[in-house]
Amino acid sequence: MVAEDRAEAAPVAIVMGSQSDWATMSHASETLKALGVAHDARIVSAHRTPDRLVAFAKGARDEGFRVVIAGAGGAAHLPGMVAAMTPLPVFGVPVQSHTLSGLDSLLSIVQMPAGVPVGTLAIGRAGAVNAALLAASVLALTDAGLAERLDAWRAAQTDGVADRPTES
Amino acid sequence: MVAEDRAEAAPVAIVMGSQSDWATMSHASETLKALGVAHDARIVSAHRTPDRLVAFAKGARDEGFRVVIAGAGGAAHLPGMVAAMTPLPVFGVPVQSHTLSGLDSLLSIVQMPAGVPVGTLAIGRAGAVNAALLAASVLALTDAGLAERLDAWRAAQTDGVADRPTES
Amino acid sequence: MVAEDRAEAAPVAIVMGSQSDWATMSHASETLKALGVAHDARIVSAHRTPDRLVAFAKGARDEGFRVVIAGAGGAAHLPGMVAAMTPLPVFGVPVQSHTLSGLDSLLSIVQMPAGVPVGTLAIGRAGAVNAALLAASVLALTDAGLAERLDAWRAAQTDGVADRPTES
Amino acid sequence: MVAEDRAEAAPVAIVMGSQSDWATMSHASETLKALGVAHDARIVSAHRTPDRLVAFAKGARDEGFRVVIAGAGGAAHLPGMVAAMTPLPVFGVPVQSHTLSGLDSLLSIVQMPAGVPVGTLAIGRAGAVNAALLAASVLALTDAGLAERLDAWRAAQTDGVADRPTES
Amino acid sequence: MVAEDRAEAAPVAIVMGSQSDWATMSHASETLKALGVAHDARIVSAHRTPDRLVAFAKGARDEGFRVVIAGAGGAAHLPGMVAAMTPLPVFGVPVQSHTLSGLDSLLSIVQMPAGVPVGTLAIGRAGAVNAALLAASVLALTDAGLAERLDAWRAAQTDGVADRPTES
Amino acid sequence: MVAEDRAEAAPVAIVMGSQSDWATMSHASETLKALGVAHDARIVSAHRTPDRLVAFAKGARDEGFRVVIAGAGGAAHLPGMVAAMTPLPVFGVPVQSHTLSGLDSLLSIVQMPAGVPVGTLAIGRAGAVNAALLAASVLALTDAGLAERLDAWRAAQTDGVADRPTES
Amino acid sequence: MVAEDRAEAAPVAIVMGSQSDWATMSHASETLKALGVAHDARIVSAHRTPDRLVAFAKGARDEGFRVVIAGAGGAAHLPGMVAAMTPLPVFGVPVQSHTLSGLDSLLSIVQMPAGVPVGTLAIGRAGAVNAALLAASVLALTDAGLAERLDAWRAAQTDGVADRPTES
Amino acid sequence: MVAEDRAEAAPVAIVMGSQSDWATMSHASETLKALGVAHDARIVSAHRTPDRLVAFAKGARDEGFRVVIAGAGGAAHLPGMVAAMTPLPVFGVPVQSHTLSGLDSLLSIVQMPAGVPVGTLAIGRAGAVNAALLAASVLALTDAGLAERLDAWRAAQTDGVADRPTES
Repeated sequence: MVAEDRAEAAPVAIVMGSQSDWATMSHASETLKALGVAHDARIVSAHRTPDRLVAFAKGARDEGFRVVIAGAGGAAHLPGMVAAMTPLPVFGVPVQSHTLSGLDSLLSIVQMPAGVPVGTLAIGRAGAVNAALLAASVLALTDAGLAERLDAWRAAQTDGVADRPTES
Repeated sequence: MVAEDRAEAAPVAIVMGSQSDWATMSHASETLKALGVAHDARIVSAHRTPDRLVAFAKGARDEGFRVVIAGAGGAAHLPGMVAAMTPLPVFGVPVQSHTLSGLDSLLSIVQMPAGVPVGTLAIGRAGAVNAALLAASVLALTDAGLAERLDAWRAAQTDGVADRPTES
Repeated sequence: MVAEDRAEAAPVAIVMGSQSDWATMSHASETLKALGVAHDARIVSAHRTPDRLVAFAKGARDEGFRVVIAGAGGAAHLPGMVAAMTPLPVFGVPVQSHTLSGLDSLLSIVQMPAGVPVGTLAIGRAGAVNAALLAASVLALTDAGLAERLDAWRAAQTDGVADRPTES
Repeated sequence: MVAEDRAEAAPVAIVMGSQSDWATMSHASETLKALGVAHDARIVSAHRTPDRLVAFAKGARDEGFRVVIAGAGGAAHLPGMVAAMTPLPVFGVPVQSHTLSGLDSLLSIVQMPAGVPVGTLAIGRAGAVNAALLAASVLALTDAGLAERLDAWRAAQTDGVADRPTES
Repeated sequence: MVAEDRAEAAPVAIVMGSQSDWATMSHASETLKALGVAHDARIVSAHRTPDRLVAFAKGARDEGFRVVIAGAGGAAHLPGMVAAMTPLPVFGVPVQSHTLSGLDSLLSIVQMPAGVPVGTLAIGRAGAVNAALLAASVLALTDAGLAERLDAWRAAQTDGVADRPTES
Repeated sequence: MVAEDRAEAAPVAIVMGSQSDWATMSHASETLKALGVAHDARIVSAHRTPDRLVAFAKGARDEGFRVVIAGAGGAAHLPGMVAAMTPLPVFGVPVQSHTLSGLDSLLSIVQMPAGVPVGTLAIGRAGAVNAALLAASVLALTDAGLAERLDAWRAAQTDGVADRPTES
Repeated sequence: MVAEDRAEAAPVAIVMGSQSDWATMSHASETLKALGVAHDARIVSAHRTPDRLVAFAKGARDEGFRVVIAGAGGAAHLPGMVAAMTPLPVFGVPVQSHTLSGLDSLLSIVQMPAGVPVGTLAIGRAGAVNAALLAASVLALTDAGLAERLDAWRAAQTDGVADRPTES
Repeated sequence: MVAEDRAEAAPVAIVMGSQSDWATMSHASETLKALGVAHDARIVSAHRTPDRLVAFAKGARDEGFRVVIAGAGGAAHLPGMVAAMTPLPVFGVPVQSHTLSGLDSLLSIVQMPAGVPVGTLAIGRAGAVNAALLAASVLALTDAGLAERLDAWRAAQTDGVADRPTES
């Protein structure tokens, strides 16, 4: 079920602008693993590897991907540029930036012009987890098993909320 | 194909917090119509009609919806609360607010905690158009006809970009 | 006087979105204790436990609560959603968020549309203390003993301000 | 029931920093009128009439007021300074400012230090309406008639939300 | 000297994301004309015409351009993506956006990661004028005639500042 | 008393970056006139007339000025650069900018490093009026007549605040 | 020369909202000491000690103060409220707040309405130093000795700037 | 090749407002060294050493510099003031400020009025690196050897991007 074993058939691609984004984006990977969703994680820098960007984005559908999760920080162009070159749904994760706490990342990803959508999640770890959950919810539309696992995951999450706070 | 004729089978629900949001959200409807995607537009106010919110969100999957587009402004709780009560993908549109230009709407929608995702689009009209396109891209994963129409729509968009600017 | 002993008669409910919010909201509890105001602290996640949210908010008046203090962070929907389902006064505490320092929490709580008010306090610990004081000021309108205790608390606060700064 | 007739017995004071704030704060007055809550509207400028501020705030409880609604814009000090000198609950309305859209007003009102609370509402008209509703909810705790009128007002608001949007 | 006559030899390319950006970017063109700098203005949408983007950016040096001025608004990816694919100096102009006044445009352009620079100018018209002046200052390093014209332009600007304000 | 007649003896200099700033800065002039304070208004652009800036700032004390009021917008360097070159008190007025509403002007003026102070007033017209009042308060320290006029001005301001709002 | 020895004759009052502000405001004191300007530092909380605020502000001129430096954080009302009750020049220092880095403090102090000025300095330590320098520049207008010391301080500051950076 | 050896012929000047900026600006120096571009780094404080500023800026072209990189923080006036007094291209680096994370630095540098351009880079270290790269790209227009080294640097950067993330 893990990405390494069956990357060719993985329905979800996780791409990120740099190695440093993995500290955030690994939470997307962990969440997809928990839901049993195969995925492939790659570094694709819009700015430093533009050819890789074009190759990845244009080929994503043919590679068999069905959803792309893209994370980047600062002037975060990766999610939008992928969305410009693939008809697949693209979900963007604003990575928390050093100076502006990810507000720049968020605005760079979410404020796309009409015509090229990026479904944007929260800044940082929460956004990475949620990009995975959103991708799973898309795949679950035609995968009853995944739908069940996702329902179970959500139910477990609900059950895990204690009634009362305890001293930390 | 229009929403009125076959709402029971519409795969996309468009919900918004108030009548005034329709000026924005109608662009989502227009875009879905252009792509031949049936949809149903409703007013569901998280704050003024919480029962309707619960009924809608909990019943959305059983009503046959596959994707929910939710638009709201200011302290925009509708998209997140729908996402809390349905396993369907939810795409949020921050409606431009009077005082803070939609920055409040954007942060209220996008900054969801880990566990309950809302794929958020741009503030205002662009976001409404893109929510429709994103919903279509999800449905197109299992609807070859829609995939073709979406590809054609994107190609037409590309072809519609002039080479050089002209005096306005 | 503590919440645990007489929760059924407590006039103040403190609800928060997650265990992690307790680090902030415990200051509301401490302040209420100092004023001799019984209260009940619960975790009610708008997003992860929406049924608990509905049950709590709709039942709050019948449970005997007179004021609700609600704290949450990020896309903080708890205070507003409680306010949507109870006629009781609701006071909101924006919990400081990791990435945007609570500006998202603040705007998500305070920018409620006309019709459903949340009296919002400052971000973080100060807001939690003040939510307790504001709740006490409401209860003191019809509780002469509490009014005296609140006056004394305020007088002590005034007396506690030194005339001149000292080296720290 | 109107403020002019029985100001001495009015439970709600509406104070504002200048005549120009009335365009916003009149919505609080209108809402209170609709709920049958007597009130008294005054101009009290923290900066231009500091003596009036002190006299009002220190005398508010003895004047018979039970709740104070205070609106101001820019460096909005009125709500906080009133709260510093009265034990009554104070609800603040950030008036939309010319240059910064009320963000300055909001932060000046809501970010009170621990010890002196102001329950802050949304920027502008929505905040004024909601300050009135919040004041009414406080008074309704010990006024069954008002509680019924407030419930009715809320029910009417819910009933007034159409099911579907219409072309504007 | 005008762009139309000798576009093949124009040292400056002005590219923009859409026709609507021309209202801003035409000021860059006007300024270059005033300085006698040939240029070529094109619409290159990073999102709607990604192939055109790649072709333009990769071919800019071979086309004979020496400086690229790129203007875009919202999630403004054009300047950064051009800079990713050309070694030429790229100057970015944040076009004022409808909802966030160009703050999104600015952050999307200026916050580039280490390795791929975009020299960013002010939001809107001033930025467009200044991008032209900055491009001219670069070309003037090896064009004594242009250096003289630029010096004259600056001197005239200085001379044009009146000593005292007059009633408008 | 007007500036034109006795500019050589005027204790207050009003400088501004451009003619367009006069719409704001004329309010400083009007206020000084109302207080009988001679002043001299000049256009001094830090960016377009740097020599004039140096000459003015270095010579301001010798010209007989005792206080400088400096207004500018956007990247507003005039107040700080004047303060760098004169020991006189400098008061800065952030002129409301087109794109960012004067937030850029404000931060450019107020965030001076330790060592070179600019006493900064509010954005726009209020700031211009207040710069004049602040300058007058400085001069009034050693001008009993002006002190009386300033006290009278303040008293009249206080008296001019109506007790109750009237319909506009 | 120190404040303790001759507070009755001190021309500068330094007031701050709480003991915690002293970490910032002590830099104003140190700077005044370096310039040989007697001063008196007090804690005056606008919110917790409003009577002390009124007494201080109304009596400041009669106490012999000629300039007031006021520092506060968050909803920072102290500088503006002092300015409302004294004709003396008031210089405000926004203390860096925990959650919003002092942006709330800055806006609460600087955005005063027309009629009541506060000359505002930078957020934090730099602002405290500069408030002292600005106060000194006001006093130096009629104190030749101080003018010389201030000129010397500024010259020393200039001389202290190294020509080239060194490894830290 | 290092700056010390041949400063008189260095084509790039790096100026910064204070020694503390060197922690940021040294990255510009390091990048230029890596590209074999001679440069000269100096401290030029617009506020504390205005004469040095004027002398540097007015003499920069005659000193043989061809590009100026200027870094400053807070109310960052250095880049714009240099640009006001030299026809050379000026690239600005907003140094991250203590309180506002460099947003003040950024706006102070980038929002220059029409007529005096500063090509602005990202806040902090990335901006310093990129200012060097942008300067190199300008010089490379007429230096084939540098153009090759810059191409190689960019190619190495591209090659250095791993295909897949690894655990950190």
